[in-house]
Amino acid sequence: MTTDKPHEECGVIGIFAPAEEAASMAYFGLHALQHRGQEAAGIAVADGRIIRDHKGLGLVSQVFNQGNLSPLTGHLAIGHTRYSTSGSSSLRNAQPFLVDTQFGPLAIAHNGNIANAAQLRSEILQRGIGLPTSSDSGIMLMALAGARGDTWEERLQTVMGAWQGAYSLVLLTQDKVLAVRDPWGFRPLSLGHLPNGGFAVASESGALQTLGCHHIREIAPGEIVTLDAHGLKSCQGLKPAQPLARCTFEHIYFSRPDSVWDELSVHHVRQRLGEELWQETQLKGDVVIPVPDSAIPAAIGFSRVSHIPHNDGFIKNRYIGRTFIQPTDTLRRQGVKLKFNALPDNLRDKRVIVIDDSIVRGNTSGPLVKLLRQAGALEVHLAITCPPIAHPCYMGVDMGTYDELIAHRMTIEQTREHIGCDSLHYLSVEGVMRAIGRKEGYCNACFTGVYPFKINTQHTKTGFE
Amino acid sequence: MTTDKPHEECGVIGIFAPAEEAASMAYFGLHALQHRGQEAAGIAVADGRIIRDHKGLGLVSQVFNQGNLSPLTGHLAIGHTRYSTSGSSSLRNAQPFLVDTQFGPLAIAHNGNIANAAQLRSEILQRGIGLPTSSDSGIMLMALAGARGDTWEERLQTVMGAWQGAYSLVLLTQDKVLAVRDPWGFRPLSLGHLPNGGFAVASESGALQTLGCHHIREIAPGEIVTLDAHGLKSCQGLKPAQPLARCTFEHIYFSRPDSVWDELSVHHVRQRLGEELWQETQLKGDVVIPVPDSAIPAAIGFSRVSHIPHNDGFIKNRYIGRTFIQPTDTLRRQGVKLKFNALPDNLRDKRVIVIDDSIVRGNTSGPLVKLLRQAGALEVHLAITCPPIAHPCYMGVDMGTYDELIAHRMTIEQTREHIGCDSLHYLSVEGVMRAIGRKEGYCNACFTGVYPFKINTQHTKTGFE
Amino acid sequence: MTTDKPHEECGVIGIFAPAEEAASMAYFGLHALQHRGQEAAGIAVADGRIIRDHKGLGLVSQVFNQGNLSPLTGHLAIGHTRYSTSGSSSLRNAQPFLVDTQFGPLAIAHNGNIANAAQLRSEILQRGIGLPTSSDSGIMLMALAGARGDTWEERLQTVMGAWQGAYSLVLLTQDKVLAVRDPWGFRPLSLGHLPNGGFAVASESGALQTLGCHHIREIAPGEIVTLDAHGLKSCQGLKPAQPLARCTFEHIYFSRPDSVWDELSVHHVRQRLGEELWQETQLKGDVVIPVPDSAIPAAIGFSRVSHIPHNDGFIKNRYIGRTFIQPTDTLRRQGVKLKFNALPDNLRDKRVIVIDDSIVRGNTSGPLVKLLRQAGALEVHLAITCPPIAHPCYMGVDMGTYDELIAHRMTIEQTREHIGCDSLHYLSVEGVMRAIGRKEGYCNACFTGVYPFKINTQHTKTGFE
Amino acid sequence: MTTDKPHEECGVIGIFAPAEEAASMAYFGLHALQHRGQEAAGIAVADGRIIRDHKGLGLVSQVFNQGNLSPLTGHLAIGHTRYSTSGSSSLRNAQPFLVDTQFGPLAIAHNGNIANAAQLRSEILQRGIGLPTSSDSGIMLMALAGARGDTWEERLQTVMGAWQGAYSLVLLTQDKVLAVRDPWGFRPLSLGHLPNGGFAVASESGALQTLGCHHIREIAPGEIVTLDAHGLKSCQGLKPAQPLARCTFEHIYFSRPDSVWDELSVHHVRQRLGEELWQETQLKGDVVIPVPDSAIPAAIGFSRVSHIPHNDGFIKNRYIGRTFIQPTDTLRRQGVKLKFNALPDNLRDKRVIVIDDSIVRGNTSGPLVKLLRQAGALEVHLAITCPPIAHPCYMGVDMGTYDELIAHRMTIEQTREHIGCDSLHYLSVEGVMRAIGRKEGYCNACFTGVYPFKINTQHTKTGFE
Repeated sequence: MTTDKPHEECGVIGIFAPAEEAASMAYFGLHALQHRGQEAAGIAVADGRIIRDHKGLGLVSQVFNQGNLSPLTGHLAIGHTRYSTSGSSSLRNAQPFLVDTQFGPLAIAHNGNIANAAQLRSEILQRGIGLPTSSDSGIMLMALAGARGDTWEERLQTVMGAWQGAYSLVLLTQDKVLAVRDPWGFRPLSLGHLPNGGFAVASESGALQTLGCHHIREIAPGEIVTLDAHGLKSCQGLKPAQPLARCTFEHIYFSRPDSVWDELSVHHVRQRLGEELWQETQLKGDVVIPVPDSAIPAAIGFSRVSHIPHNDGFIKNRYIGRTFIQPTDTLRRQGVKLKFNALPDNLRDKRVIVIDDSIVRGNTSGPLVKLLRQAGALEVHLAITCPPIAHPCYMGVDMGTYDELIAHRMTIEQTREHIGCDSLHYLSVEGVMRAIGRKEGYCNACFTGVYPFKINTQHTKTGFE
Repeated sequence: MTTDKPHEECGVIGIFAPAEEAASMAYFGLHALQHRGQEAAGIAVADGRIIRDHKGLGLVSQVFNQGNLSPLTGHLAIGHTRYSTSGSSSLRNAQPFLVDTQFGPLAIAHNGNIANAAQLRSEILQRGIGLPTSSDSGIMLMALAGARGDTWEERLQTVMGAWQGAYSLVLLTQDKVLAVRDPWGFRPLSLGHLPNGGFAVASESGALQTLGCHHIREIAPGEIVTLDAHGLKSCQGLKPAQPLARCTFEHIYFSRPDSVWDELSVHHVRQRLGEELWQETQLKGDVVIPVPDSAIPAAIGFSRVSHIPHNDGFIKNRYIGRTFIQPTDTLRRQGVKLKFNALPDNLRDKRVIVIDDSIVRGNTSGPLVKLLRQAGALEVHLAITCPPIAHPCYMGVDMGTYDELIAHRMTIEQTREHIGCDSLHYLSVEGVMRAIGRKEGYCNACFTGVYPFKINTQHTKTGFE
Repeated sequence: MTTDKPHEECGVIGIFAPAEEAASMAYFGLHALQHRGQEAAGIAVADGRIIRDHKGLGLVSQVFNQGNLSPLTGHLAIGHTRYSTSGSSSLRNAQPFLVDTQFGPLAIAHNGNIANAAQLRSEILQRGIGLPTSSDSGIMLMALAGARGDTWEERLQTVMGAWQGAYSLVLLTQDKVLAVRDPWGFRPLSLGHLPNGGFAVASESGALQTLGCHHIREIAPGEIVTLDAHGLKSCQGLKPAQPLARCTFEHIYFSRPDSVWDELSVHHVRQRLGEELWQETQLKGDVVIPVPDSAIPAAIGFSRVSHIPHNDGFIKNRYIGRTFIQPTDTLRRQGVKLKFNALPDNLRDKRVIVIDDSIVRGNTSGPLVKLLRQAGALEVHLAITCPPIAHPCYMGVDMGTYDELIAHRMTIEQTREHIGCDSLHYLSVEGVMRAIGRKEGYCNACFTGVYPFKINTQHTKTGFE
Repeated sequence: MTTDKPHEECGVIGIFAPAEEAASMAYFGLHALQHRGQEAAGIAVADGRIIRDHKGLGLVSQVFNQGNLSPLTGHLAIGHTRYSTSGSSSLRNAQPFLVDTQFGPLAIAHNGNIANAAQLRSEILQRGIGLPTSSDSGIMLMALAGARGDTWEERLQTVMGAWQGAYSLVLLTQDKVLAVRDPWGFRPLSLGHLPNGGFAVASESGALQTLGCHHIREIAPGEIVTLDAHGLKSCQGLKPAQPLARCTFEHIYFSRPDSVWDELSVHHVRQRLGEELWQETQLKGDVVIPVPDSAIPAAIGFSRVSHIPHNDGFIKNRYIGRTFIQPTDTLRRQGVKLKFNALPDNLRDKRVIVIDDSIVRGNTSGPLVKLLRQAGALEVHLAITCPPIAHPCYMGVDMGTYDELIAHRMTIEQTREHIGCDSLHYLSVEGVMRAIGRKEGYCNACFTGVYPFKINTQHTKTGFE
């Protein structure tokens, strides 16, 4: 399905479970992170001696079955769901990625993107090393395999300084799980206590909630957390950046609404985004409808402060998502529409305010507007809970290139005309930050073009797919 | 996944498409009917000469791929998604079901349940016929294969009188699609014009909307509609029953909210159910939350008339549905919960009114209430948009047996205690009918025990699985 | 893989095993019958009460796994491997085929072909019955479902008279297995005692040997054998035909060499065919080579009486058989040859006598001859262990139509030229019968055109695939 | 299926095909090498710019389909079939193995075993490199990725000196295929001209014959052959060892009979082994039978010089090989035998001489002898076409450990008693060399314990599976 959303690269999870069901817990936890990556999934487990793994292309429920999950015995596990941004989408780049090193076996699962990966890759190749994957994970593993230090924590401290970019990592050794977050804090990573005395880390607190965790907190920017039979240990790998650069889009779109990001309920922030959107636009209309599912909380918030009634205007076809068969052009022209149906009773003769979370390439809003007009809407006003996305992300979010971004190619008025709505409104960066309730500490580079550090955009490609 | 919902038996679709993409249209249309049956799917096509088919166990997207869809060439198609109520869930009972007859090949796809099937089955066996399936479809096909009449319409008229129960059928012959509905009108079946000059019938108008249909109307109770190269033809197979007996649960739970049932928007009726629920209960609280997804419109309606703010309280894990691996008891006890997470920020210290559409066996409401309390809810009041379900359905809905129905075994107060909520409320039958806006014409037997005709509950089982 | 061999339609097996591992025994036995049909496989089991089944397209090892074999519990089983002659090759026609009847459930597995099926089919359709399969099995089941008689044996006796053609059947009811053979004895069916007190029937004694059976005997032409908890019972369904019409090709090609057919070792008969072939041809040469695997015993026999040394001349690529990817024409023209390599050391500068069992369409012998010449053979003499096949088979062997049979279209000299060998020799019908050691009792219609009864070659096709 | 044979580790193939069907040719060629490894298969292709690959667990026909073969476009390809000796049997160790290096992408497919791999592995880990596979291939690739030299040929020359053991390699870069053989010449590797102007290399000449190659020759021990758009180039990587150490077992068992090894027809050598076996044993009997398929040529040779008639005594069940379901002990005890049936007619009341190629663990000969006796054999004399295997192989053949080898644990008389035959005979080393017709140049270490160089048997294990 083509969607016009930014794509998150990955979800990661790590488990230390005294009762030995680590792989099983990782499996269920990964379901709660499936929205962060649906192209590949994998789990690696350690039993104190040996690391075993299984990974494959597809959804978690497609990759794993009782037959391949059962042999993954051990009390330590890491897992990964992948959406491919850098690195092509083959099985080769599925994670966790596992190597043998002079210090023993080491597996990695990574969410983020190393902005200076091309340079680091080139340095590793120059050292006479062969890299078996095109993803950043291989670079990180090779750096660690050759790092100085008596412990993995020390080795991490040695190499983290060279990694410029976003990385929320979980590492697995024979007898421990390590969780690491870059000093800018780009991507989320949370830690919780399992009810039975173990620990779990996951890209989102929502996954920890699914596992029944309590005492959930963020892994701090730059922090290294170690989980093993001795319990929980923490040290700082690098000092946190000043200021931090949390990804604003986790609030706007990526994270589950039941997750906590920067100690804030994502659902709550989204409602606030809807409130701010009305404050800025003062839009008038007869009904507020969300584009489901992500814009639902914002529509509730918009309705609450505007006193314009909130209702459903679109019904999402939940089963169309995984088909690999696409309608022919003929069928499409005839009006076969797979993703949404409109609800004429709620739209007819109404001035409709549609809340959506973002416009990236701008190719799906037009058909939605048309659907509303066919259903009898008198006016269609499209209000977006973030500013125009005018710059690519180099931190692991697939926004597209400059050429693909509609906000780079068109003015807002041109965009409105392209989409065919009566008016088009974006929330300002200031409005977004007011909704979050923070003054700084967020990366808004995709809106502003101001990156947290200098980006070298020249990439060297690997020679294989 | 165990859920405590009534289960619909099937979805059916039929296509006459001059441009020969009938199978492809059936395929996309079945996605929009996937919620009506997820155990098996199938499509049969005719090209004027030969009928070909493919069917299998699983979701539409799992059963079909380009390789098995492409050979299904022809301008006529019928399709089916199956949830098994009668007949066991093997491939043998997947539909469409296809036989050769003295009048040529005939395929059938059926939604409903023939209440006197056991007797009809026995009569067919006594005629010396072997029945290759345990489902009603075989009975109907054998009746038609031996019926008097010069046309399929005449043969249908001959045999329909003997079929007591619910049947929304599509039939496929070498050169036409026939759509038939029982005279009580138990289950829905709608007809629409395809943009390119063809026609489509489907269990729900939402599927017709997905295919781009216009001029959508219901197939009338007792009506036989024929689609072929000569266009559309209609005749009455049996006179409509007086009164009709439409299934109330299509409004309450089964149908897509974007479908129309009895010329009423299902989404609108659900909002009205929420409104009537407040009118009857006059409940007080701080927030109204739905159990997603089906209770969302009712919660909006409840909030609108009660002026109690509506918000999300649960987040549904959309990816857990299709896993065949279940958590061990150990993991379950530790708190692994796969289906819903609660949103503490929206619940903490609040008197929470939870809107749900039905309670059947009563085994899933308790855990939901517990989840809300753990998230800090002060009080939990559970309000259901229909009356207690105290009687089984014999018309194709899997409500469970008398012994399984909690409303048959317990009083409302006992049920409340079992679930652990502070109060428990059901909408009255009268409230339901007020919400729909009709005085009669609906089957409410699962609430009242008053069936549209006498039910003989003694079944003869088939000797195979 | 294209081969130029007649194709056998099916293998059947039936088990009564007191220790309840009937499905498992059927599974292993079907492997020994895999050569008789590789398109579909299936097993049905009964436990005294219920019949369960599983079937699918592909080899036995592909259709079954522990997951679908384990639920097939019971002490009675029948199984089938299918090659499609009549009926198209879809899952619909996979066997065992199972129906519910007035007398209880009944499953069938069939090897053979009913020559008057079209007429029987038409009669059944006229009775107002829908036939769900295009194979003969449905016809037989419907006949039995409506037959007079108090027992299945009586019902068989009632209907067998109408079945003109080849049928080696196994039937499964709730509590017994029945094995039936047509009165002509066209196709084999043997019975053996299992070591643990049970019984097994199978298309070939080789499969019974695999299961460890002893006291193996043929089911007699026209005999009905019943296996159940009361042991073994036999009655005659029809009197044996005079003379019998055993298929000569079971000796020549179909049966495993370790099977016994007409109380004769097939391996031994094949050696004798080689001996007779030399007696008739008195061929001279330097080496005798077989086309592997089926002609190996004949080459041994030919060598023994001719005193011409026997050696391997071709090596068969055993792994190419199941690939669905075929070489492009370009690759083929370049010389990619998948099935056989020649052994130049054994062929160079030699007059080579090649023994093969049959020529049907005549399209694969030419490339073999060319291979031998490229490997340095001085002369290539092709000797066939049967007469020219000039007439189709209506008893379940896919020989092809008259137009396809090279012996119908060409003289022997034209065929020799087409193939490109130095001389071409066929064994005479008399030579074949001498090798077998019988004067009569065999069907040689494919050589002589003299069928055991009048054949009506007009077929009515079913209207589905 | 358990068999008592030594296991070959791998088959490799390399293609330079001007017409761009390189992957397709590799695919068909791998079928002809399937006997050398059935656990995994893979193909990598290059188009002058990029390398693409696909690999998986299972047979070549299971791993590849049109869908994953079609995207492998390019005129250069390498392929691999794997049986795991060193390295566990997971997908991680499937080949070709592919890395990016400072010199561009490089893929490898390897047959053989590096005897000093543990030491080399340890050196690489100490260099701070992470090794993603436990097989030798990763070691070789990392050595090459860090090697000095301006061309891959020079880099190979730099590193080959450190590799002590067996390696027949094919390497793939962006624009060439390289084929390399160790200086001892342990494992075969042949080169042929494709009819269309390209070249192919393969583990066995039989695979080249399948592809239609002519002018076939061995890659010389120590030779590096380069295939690319400029044609064929050869240089010496290392001087050939004095003496060479070709694997005797390629003649005895591994190679296809239609392959050439050391310029000798394998089929011819096997016949000669049979002849020498009779010369040494002067055995008397009534019939000579082979254990199929590998001992067939030896039985022919034995018969030819002994004038004892040769015949089939066992029929192999060709379809049982790939089932993953094994008979229960109960079934086994009852006599279910899956692999061979005996032919009583050829054995009854006869003194039977059975020819087999080797005894490794000694667990399958006993049941075969028993089968012959049950079929009526008067005496059973077992004659083996090689000496007792008393020492493990460190060059890539899985013979088992000292403890597993029956010839290490028992005398010949004890072995005979264990097997239950009347007499047991092994061909002497001298007899084997006479049959081959060479005085030296072969490795007979598994018989003699004399290895071509000192073996360090202490292994370091990797920490993952």
